[in-house]
Amino acid sequence: MHNSPMSDATLSKTTFHSTAALEQFAAALFTQVGMDKDKAQTLGRFLVLTDAMGRRTHGLAMAGLYLADIEKGGMTLRGEPEVIKDNGISVVWDGGYLPGLWLVNKAIEEAIVRAQKHGIAAYAIRKSHHIGCLAALVKQAADRGFIAQISNSDPAGARVAPYGGCEALFTPNPMAMGYPGAHNPVLIDICASITTTSMTRQTFAAGQQFEHPWLLDAQGTPTRDPAVLENTQARGSLQLLGGQEYGHKGFGLALGIEALSQGLSGHGRKDAPKRWGGNVFLQVIDPELFAGRDAFTEQMDYLSERCRTNKPIHADRPVRLPGDQAAVGVEKAQRQGLSYDSQTWQGLAEWADKLKVALPVSV
Amino acid sequence: MHNSPMSDATLSKTTFHSTAALEQFAAALFTQVGMDKDKAQTLGRFLVLTDAMGRRTHGLAMAGLYLADIEKGGMTLRGEPEVIKDNGISVVWDGGYLPGLWLVNKAIEEAIVRAQKHGIAAYAIRKSHHIGCLAALVKQAADRGFIAQISNSDPAGARVAPYGGCEALFTPNPMAMGYPGAHNPVLIDICASITTTSMTRQTFAAGQQFEHPWLLDAQGTPTRDPAVLENTQARGSLQLLGGQEYGHKGFGLALGIEALSQGLSGHGRKDAPKRWGGNVFLQVIDPELFAGRDAFTEQMDYLSERCRTNKPIHADRPVRLPGDQAAVGVEKAQRQGLSYDSQTWQGLAEWADKLKVALPVSV
Repeated sequence: MHNSPMSDATLSKTTFHSTAALEQFAAALFTQVGMDKDKAQTLGRFLVLTDAMGRRTHGLAMAGLYLADIEKGGMTLRGEPEVIKDNGISVVWDGGYLPGLWLVNKAIEEAIVRAQKHGIAAYAIRKSHHIGCLAALVKQAADRGFIAQISNSDPAGARVAPYGGCEALFTPNPMAMGYPGAHNPVLIDICASITTTSMTRQTFAAGQQFEHPWLLDAQGTPTRDPAVLENTQARGSLQLLGGQEYGHKGFGLALGIEALSQGLSGHGRKDAPKRWGGNVFLQVIDPELFAGRDAFTEQMDYLSERCRTNKPIHADRPVRLPGDQAAVGVEKAQRQGLSYDSQTWQGLAEWADKLKVALPVSV
Repeated sequence: MHNSPMSDATLSKTTFHSTAALEQFAAALFTQVGMDKDKAQTLGRFLVLTDAMGRRTHGLAMAGLYLADIEKGGMTLRGEPEVIKDNGISVVWDGGYLPGLWLVNKAIEEAIVRAQKHGIAAYAIRKSHHIGCLAALVKQAADRGFIAQISNSDPAGARVAPYGGCEALFTPNPMAMGYPGAHNPVLIDICASITTTSMTRQTFAAGQQFEHPWLLDAQGTPTRDPAVLENTQARGSLQLLGGQEYGHKGFGLALGIEALSQGLSGHGRKDAPKRWGGNVFLQVIDPELFAGRDAFTEQMDYLSERCRTNKPIHADRPVRLPGDQAAVGVEKAQRQGLSYDSQTWQGLAEWADKLKVALPVSV
């Protein structure tokens, strides 16, 4: 069990499905429950892309969680975000719990147009629903030569304590940045805690312990046991990046991400929201309006090359850049399709049966 | 030996000097070697503020390093940055190795005016000289109700290897963010490596080892020994944030900071600069043009309070926010002045003697 953002779950199935068939299948599940068609298609596209990128916890495995939340009325299925403010460069949206991948992708599309005019455009979004895999989102801008940065928090969630404390207060607070590269974009996707909610749930479900003490129990003692997060009597927390040694660094990241995503959107923990959601601060930069796109890619491609040719600690494990493994996965998925572990597939099959949607045929 | 950004060196001297006298003294040292008066005064003000904030490695202890570099012709003493591009929101400067604290402070002042109009303003600066303490810089904007973010790297320095590699390539790459708070601003100042160049030099000079293996030797084996960074035959490196366990996170931060500070300014490692310098990406945000300054501070003050009242792991060590200890230090320094350890004071006295500048009188 490790924490690499690019880790692939062990796949027990050897049946492959084309990405197009999987995207249509996911879109059909969401339209069947009443979601606008373009939103359903965007969700399908992103969830499958996320699987192709190797981020299995945030791919089609998320579809069931979204459908369950839709049944409870947690996700808004139709309509547009409310524009709270628009100054050309700086925009505030109330997402009204619309699907997060659709909402943020829409903001990225708009921000690219504005960044081309002004150099930068920024969107502060409150009350988005869950925004899925941040790396898949920033890839949309990086693929086209732009820099995108996302800071994300959920003011309804509390799983990470401030440094020195033992009561969960923050979400893991992911942040991502994508920028263009010669071979493939560099896609940085990290968070302010050592491990994530998804990895902890997965480790707990598998009855396993983490390799290292990446959590704290309710008294603030480091532990490898994911069960402390499920303990409703004496709830633990996820350790901040840096743990007990230098967790003030993760604390700084967590605070900064809350300031951008909650402070600037004017909605946060003070409002004590109960719905599963996400606050977002998105920024798109056009390097052309700074020193130029060519100058940017010259510098960054040189740096990437210096990384890839850096003498590796283990001769058989060369240095790779964040985004490299995702690019290999996407290429492979386009060529041979994707396969799923039996647990994920079973979950999808149950929803397909319930919603009377045909499962995709295999290739 | 620990790594808290707010740590105070043990002070052996009990002589106190007023901050005003110390500022004038530092400014006099710099004007004496030919620096423009306003630049010398700005440096004096920031170096003393940095000491007051408790960041002793980056306060007046830096004056001697700056003066030595001025003797070698490394720092430009007079003039203005060259404006490479200015689109109103996005600006590129060539700093021509002018004093970094003066240069970035000037950019902050300009960016505040522009952010009030547009919501955001960003400056990419190449060839600044060393920019000192980032927290002291972002404080200038946060004190007045703005958010400031700085990303900083030195393309002439290589002390941190990419994740999985063992050849130093990056600088520690600090990043800072300041935002307004009810009692005092929150000042986040972290970097992509676990420990810093200054802390490593200080630990080496004291003949000590780090408490934890925060460095790698030339083969990539973790070590507590700061000497590996001084070993010119087989040079080691500083470990990335996350170390061997999850250093891909520090790697992501290091790359992102180089992209913003070098990529956008169009100058970086590809140019193989040899002079001690700093590349900077500075961004100032006016919360008023997002959901409003009141909404921002309401959310963030609530969050700060939730942190400060969080049940502490150790009953006698309450959770404090980054910037809290600096605020206490600044208030104390204004009241009783500052004292210095004998080594730092001796160094300053030697420069004072050499440049025929009077040492400040004690209070």
